[in-house]
Amino acid sequence: MKKMLVIGAVAAGTSAASKARRVDPEMEIKVFAEGENISYGACGLPYFIGGTMAKEKLLVRSIADFAGQGIEVRNLCQATEIKPGEKKVVFRDLSANRWFEEHYDQLVVATGARPMVLDCPNNNLPGIFTLRTVADGMAVKGYLEQRRPANVLIAGAGYIGLEMAEVLSHLGYSVTLAERGPQVAPNMDPDMAAKVQKDLEQQGVKVLVDTEIIGFAGKETVQRAFTRSGSFPADLVLVAIGVRPNTGLASAAGIELGIANAIKVNPRMETNLEGVYAAGDCATAHHLVTGKDVYIPMGTTANKQGRVAGENAAGGNEIFRGVLGTGIARIFDLEISRTGFTDKECQANGIDFRSHTVECRTAALPALAGPIWLKLTVSPADDRLLGAQIVGRGGAGKRIDVIAAAITMGARLEDIYDMDLAYSPPFSPVWDPVLVALNKFR
Amino acid sequence: MKKMLVIGAVAAGTSAASKARRVDPEMEIKVFAEGENISYGACGLPYFIGGTMAKEKLLVRSIADFAGQGIEVRNLCQATEIKPGEKKVVFRDLSANRWFEEHYDQLVVATGARPMVLDCPNNNLPGIFTLRTVADGMAVKGYLEQRRPANVLIAGAGYIGLEMAEVLSHLGYSVTLAERGPQVAPNMDPDMAAKVQKDLEQQGVKVLVDTEIIGFAGKETVQRAFTRSGSFPADLVLVAIGVRPNTGLASAAGIELGIANAIKVNPRMETNLEGVYAAGDCATAHHLVTGKDVYIPMGTTANKQGRVAGENAAGGNEIFRGVLGTGIARIFDLEISRTGFTDKECQANGIDFRSHTVECRTAALPALAGPIWLKLTVSPADDRLLGAQIVGRGGAGKRIDVIAAAITMGARLEDIYDMDLAYSPPFSPVWDPVLVALNKFR
Repeated sequence: MKKMLVIGAVAAGTSAASKARRVDPEMEIKVFAEGENISYGACGLPYFIGGTMAKEKLLVRSIADFAGQGIEVRNLCQATEIKPGEKKVVFRDLSANRWFEEHYDQLVVATGARPMVLDCPNNNLPGIFTLRTVADGMAVKGYLEQRRPANVLIAGAGYIGLEMAEVLSHLGYSVTLAERGPQVAPNMDPDMAAKVQKDLEQQGVKVLVDTEIIGFAGKETVQRAFTRSGSFPADLVLVAIGVRPNTGLASAAGIELGIANAIKVNPRMETNLEGVYAAGDCATAHHLVTGKDVYIPMGTTANKQGRVAGENAAGGNEIFRGVLGTGIARIFDLEISRTGFTDKECQANGIDFRSHTVECRTAALPALAGPIWLKLTVSPADDRLLGAQIVGRGGAGKRIDVIAAAITMGARLEDIYDMDLAYSPPFSPVWDPVLVALNKFR
Repeated sequence: MKKMLVIGAVAAGTSAASKARRVDPEMEIKVFAEGENISYGACGLPYFIGGTMAKEKLLVRSIADFAGQGIEVRNLCQATEIKPGEKKVVFRDLSANRWFEEHYDQLVVATGARPMVLDCPNNNLPGIFTLRTVADGMAVKGYLEQRRPANVLIAGAGYIGLEMAEVLSHLGYSVTLAERGPQVAPNMDPDMAAKVQKDLEQQGVKVLVDTEIIGFAGKETVQRAFTRSGSFPADLVLVAIGVRPNTGLASAAGIELGIANAIKVNPRMETNLEGVYAAGDCATAHHLVTGKDVYIPMGTTANKQGRVAGENAAGGNEIFRGVLGTGIARIFDLEISRTGFTDKECQANGIDFRSHTVECRTAALPALAGPIWLKLTVSPADDRLLGAQIVGRGGAGKRIDVIAAAITMGARLEDIYDMDLAYSPPFSPVWDPVLVALNKFR
């Protein structure tokens, strides 16, 4: 009987195992998790801390659920070595502190990513957190409840930093958001990010851009944060400056790494080693606009890549077509989203572009309408859509999906100028903002 | 100097005039409206009656606005004859009761549609209304306020009937919704419509299907409605059983009619007569799935067709690609939408199909999540998407646009199984319902 091992049991790993089981009801499937919790939705952590999402809601499936599906999941087992020659993985049982080996016919590496930390003095003082695992979320929540910090510092103004600024403000904390780069929402263009910053400030968040945290001070716990232009009190620090793929194990085994040191995979999610697949936040993906490899770790992508890896590992034949870097976040009642390439990213990648931003309302019915700014970026050579960004309220954000669908299909402007989008006053103006943006190029 | 006449001044007519002006700043443009009000959003009428949309919000642009753009708009002028040989239109000035003629080089026919009435005894008793124009809306609103009817009857359970059932229930009226056919929401499949009916009944609307209104009785105003199985009190009746294209004038002038007696137009919105265009609720449109002509009058389509007609009439070269019959409505907090073909419509058109319905939640964050039923209809031969229907709450309805975009681009299932749609807990589950529905076919 064939045996499949999966290293990692969050989104990609559990998706791979479940899909493999559906494809092959017979094969032996074992999944190993380094941490205690498995199969959780990390994107829900801000809402868990904010009290609007219960811990049970974070945890998608339990070890018992997987057992019921004929999948053995072992937590607190750290993979310490992959031996591709022998087709074995060495694990360390963290609870018993003993080592053991498992043979595999097919291996799925889903080791995820690790949060980056600030490389500065006293960066390990108690009260300084990253937010990646359920354990991280519980630690932050516990610290907040026990200490009621007077001054919260969030380092990094990406999605997690922005969401945490909302959550902690709602909980009544005084929040400072410090971003090393020149703007919040670093994966949007500066003009769109400026609207987000303005809103954060109106909501009472202190925003510091071009501000690098260069050190911390405190006795037993963190008390002050230092920047090049001075210091300020900070008795809880959340470091949300991005992640790096967790690929040391894979690399040591001779698995080829690609961009950003993520594991290089093909559309079947195969690595360079026969029988070894990778998926999720440890792996690369093709960008649908450029066809080039990118590293854009996302829960959605991890789920999809995991399914494809699982299907192929179980003998199926499936491909993952790629990503657009689509993302969305709510910050207070502001909705921000993006897909494809921003102007800034076009510039960085040497792609010709032109763009327009339109300002509309999301609905004709005043009580349900919010403002929406929609920026559309297009290739001048062939009018192909390259990307879009949205900032707004009242149903603005998810409109990005219409553009994501169009880009996925390689749409040019003229293909979709007069798309038949849904209209009635509670949902849209007669010209949906997406159509207004498209027709701006006409 | 060239002269363009437009007959009709609601969505298509005003769009045509404005676009023509932008294309050609010189040409003379005159627009004639039969009614008093011009350039209004008829889809807002239920909300005007309900008090959530002011009359000013219905009226998009005024005669003075058009004058400022160099467009002369005359209201209360009825076109009574088109003389294509002489390139003239005869108008009757309804306020002065005198006739006059206008020459044209280019003519846009945007005569819209007329609401169908019940062909039964006493169908013109005071208290029986259709809802098409601002005057209709004001009449219904006035009657409600003066009479406070005890029993409202709505005949017809399409979008307007359903929206009015909500609006009048919210205003505290006892509402009976009578539909001649076997289901509410006649342009959805029965299984989806059943969910809508159940919700209406839970909200206190009395729903009668398979119920034809065959007569009315009353002294000075309507008091009773009759069906084949008995009669019931009704002291306000709203007839919302559909519309017919208003094409008698065009037909008498030799303009060719097509399906449903709508004016047959090509993608340039040209009729069979040289220099004569038609657009909006009086005109046909190509269906993007079948390529066949259809008559699906919609405000969105009227605006788009009007623009194309105006552009071409002014010397430009633009096409209207076609429609999907996309529609959306809110009924209480239920959101219903559709695009492309339903199963029922596939059967009626002899199109092979297979379909799946999935039931999901609209978001991971419990407080923002609603249920969503998404039915997807696909061509078995080539896996091409044919249509979709949605019933749900909490951001369910507008997801139809993602599928409308995909169908517009001719997407097959495998093209979009793993589309990169936006996810974060306030907006979506990690697998967006659209992806869940697509992957049901996998």
